[in-house]
Amino acid sequence: MSLITLLTDFGAGDGYVGVMKGVILRIAPDARIVDISHEVGPQDIAAGAFILQRAYRYFPPDTIHVAVVDPGVGSARRGIALDTAHGRFVGPDNGLFTYPLAGAGTPAAYELVEPAYRLPAVSRTFHGRDIFAPAAAHLARGVLPAAFGPPIPPESLVRLPYPTPQIAGGVAHGHILYIDHFGNAISDIPEAMVAALGPAERVEVECAGRRLTGVAPTYAGGAVGEPLALISSDGLMEIAIRNGNAARQVGLRVGDAVVCRGGG
Amino acid sequence: MSLITLLTDFGAGDGYVGVMKGVILRIAPDARIVDISHEVGPQDIAAGAFILQRAYRYFPPDTIHVAVVDPGVGSARRGIALDTAHGRFVGPDNGLFTYPLAGAGTPAAYELVEPAYRLPAVSRTFHGRDIFAPAAAHLARGVLPAAFGPPIPPESLVRLPYPTPQIAGGVAHGHILYIDHFGNAISDIPEAMVAALGPAERVEVECAGRRLTGVAPTYAGGAVGEPLALISSDGLMEIAIRNGNAARQVGLRVGDAVVCRGGG
Amino acid sequence: MSLITLLTDFGAGDGYVGVMKGVILRIAPDARIVDISHEVGPQDIAAGAFILQRAYRYFPPDTIHVAVVDPGVGSARRGIALDTAHGRFVGPDNGLFTYPLAGAGTPAAYELVEPAYRLPAVSRTFHGRDIFAPAAAHLARGVLPAAFGPPIPPESLVRLPYPTPQIAGGVAHGHILYIDHFGNAISDIPEAMVAALGPAERVEVECAGRRLTGVAPTYAGGAVGEPLALISSDGLMEIAIRNGNAARQVGLRVGDAVVCRGGG
Repeated sequence: MSLITLLTDFGAGDGYVGVMKGVILRIAPDARIVDISHEVGPQDIAAGAFILQRAYRYFPPDTIHVAVVDPGVGSARRGIALDTAHGRFVGPDNGLFTYPLAGAGTPAAYELVEPAYRLPAVSRTFHGRDIFAPAAAHLARGVLPAAFGPPIPPESLVRLPYPTPQIAGGVAHGHILYIDHFGNAISDIPEAMVAALGPAERVEVECAGRRLTGVAPTYAGGAVGEPLALISSDGLMEIAIRNGNAARQVGLRVGDAVVCRGGG
Repeated sequence: MSLITLLTDFGAGDGYVGVMKGVILRIAPDARIVDISHEVGPQDIAAGAFILQRAYRYFPPDTIHVAVVDPGVGSARRGIALDTAHGRFVGPDNGLFTYPLAGAGTPAAYELVEPAYRLPAVSRTFHGRDIFAPAAAHLARGVLPAAFGPPIPPESLVRLPYPTPQIAGGVAHGHILYIDHFGNAISDIPEAMVAALGPAERVEVECAGRRLTGVAPTYAGGAVGEPLALISSDGLMEIAIRNGNAARQVGLRVGDAVVCRGGG
Repeated sequence: MSLITLLTDFGAGDGYVGVMKGVILRIAPDARIVDISHEVGPQDIAAGAFILQRAYRYFPPDTIHVAVVDPGVGSARRGIALDTAHGRFVGPDNGLFTYPLAGAGTPAAYELVEPAYRLPAVSRTFHGRDIFAPAAAHLARGVLPAAFGPPIPPESLVRLPYPTPQIAGGVAHGHILYIDHFGNAISDIPEAMVAALGPAERVEVECAGRRLTGVAPTYAGGAVGEPLALISSDGLMEIAIRNGNAARQVGLRVGDAVVCRGGG
């Protein structure tokens, strides 16, 4: 009984996701399907990639993850199946799989071109239904990734151009990667980099013209209404407001620079 | 292991859909349940019918589709079970099943009146829980539709009063049927009717006072920010804006007339 | 095959719920997971408790209900597993389980402290993933609640401080408990209390300065646009507007006092 996850920017309202599930279950009636998110901002590949990397690590390693945030549908961008040590991935080759591609091991990648594993008619606008859902369902039934089409050299796969967070001279430089439903602004600065700056309560965090002192162990440490820096549940430095919306109240946006200094 | 889909206007927040799933799983513990949409506009039967017709065709033909958009709950409107060649349908007799009723073959229809297949107490306001979910679950367990109540003559079933798109003298007339999450405005003019007007790049599309030239093969063909006509993934002519919201930017609404002329 | 339900305030967009499902399915691959709601207002324990009580009664009695609306995550509040005659419950001890605790029978309660039934690393901010999802999955696999940690005296469990509705001298006093997606305002006054006031069509309902006469049997009884009192599908007196939003149009809020008088 194979497990398939779905992540899209289709929204929950129009029935597009239900259509993909129908396609999957007609091909692989025993597949189990789990939704990761269908509320990714329209065509926001970076947000889709972030949500996917947060989730896939918690699933069994043979799970098939389908991700469709696909502004280039109908253009020359490739559809791909990736086989990695931490999961299988199906979707457009546009950067959505940046994080699993950066994981340990060399992925095997194949282009999705074999007509036998697509719907009989392929539209120009809904490859989630016509190409990606059928590919995932056939994988779930035991079809090998190599059957979908020619192998792709992993180095040619599209990756997001993220500047990696840097630490030098007691200062860490990073960026806001994602703003969640609660308004928490999550940076790419990992817990270990914060720890390297010295005692957490003396680290100074600067972002969007605001300076915070200390990286707290939990939301409960913050005064209600006051922004605080803490380590997110993903192990990344984030800026939050206890019982409030930090992004809105402080004016934080994806891409904002974040600087952390040891206070020692 | 029977498959049951759910489509409602209940929203995802209040737990009403979860209640329906509890009712189903208590009666048919092995049923598989798939959500089509719970974000249909409140009491918008036409939108529910459109989303359902988009989805049901992709499911196995023995799937049980429960649809509840039900402004007349508690009034004299009938609850029905439909048995068709392309799926089984359960819900109010108010037009929600217009599209499967228009499909090939003669459907068998039964009124849901047998108390043994309802919850013991039937409210006046939540038939999704008290009548439709139990009916679907009993169907999933193998109860025959005829056991629910008296047969209904198919011609007496409620259908939406859609004017069918027309083509005459090189001009096709139709309407906007649905506006999706991306703001794409989907008409009832099928791809074949557009093709009959001559070369796609010379077809003129008129809607809401705006004139567009050409029906593009894909979103990628459009300039960012400019509305374009194309064939939707459902095989219908739609008006979209690449990486934008056509309905909002052009001012399109459900029911707007659409006229397509050959440019030859 | 155990059934697990999920109720949170995480929203559907960020992938947090998908993460919890991954954790559950890695521990208990055969578990079935049903969403009750993930749109509970952020940190609104009372709304979460209301939605949970509405839903759990319709599920099989051995269902495991996970509820995470958890403003105190990372503080000293306890994580608990409850074993009751009408279901098993996992989540924070903060009032979310007020309603099942008020049900028949004496619940058994245990604190979730055993490290073997948590994820290896427990964050300070996402116990849904690190503690509650694993606990539910281990319950689903047959681990006994007592294995999670020390028993908790039921009387020490946190309950919401709801004033119970009262009836005296032909007058019933209650409060608005919940406002749903349609804008219906649901009170805590049960159908039987309304019935005790005399003929339904003569009961006078007062709330937020507005007076309504009669408790209608169904929405269909109301004039479009006019507020009416009726008995909700949960058997509670509610104020609604047919095809409208009563809370917004009348100005009703959770906590508003509701008074019902017999008109006899």
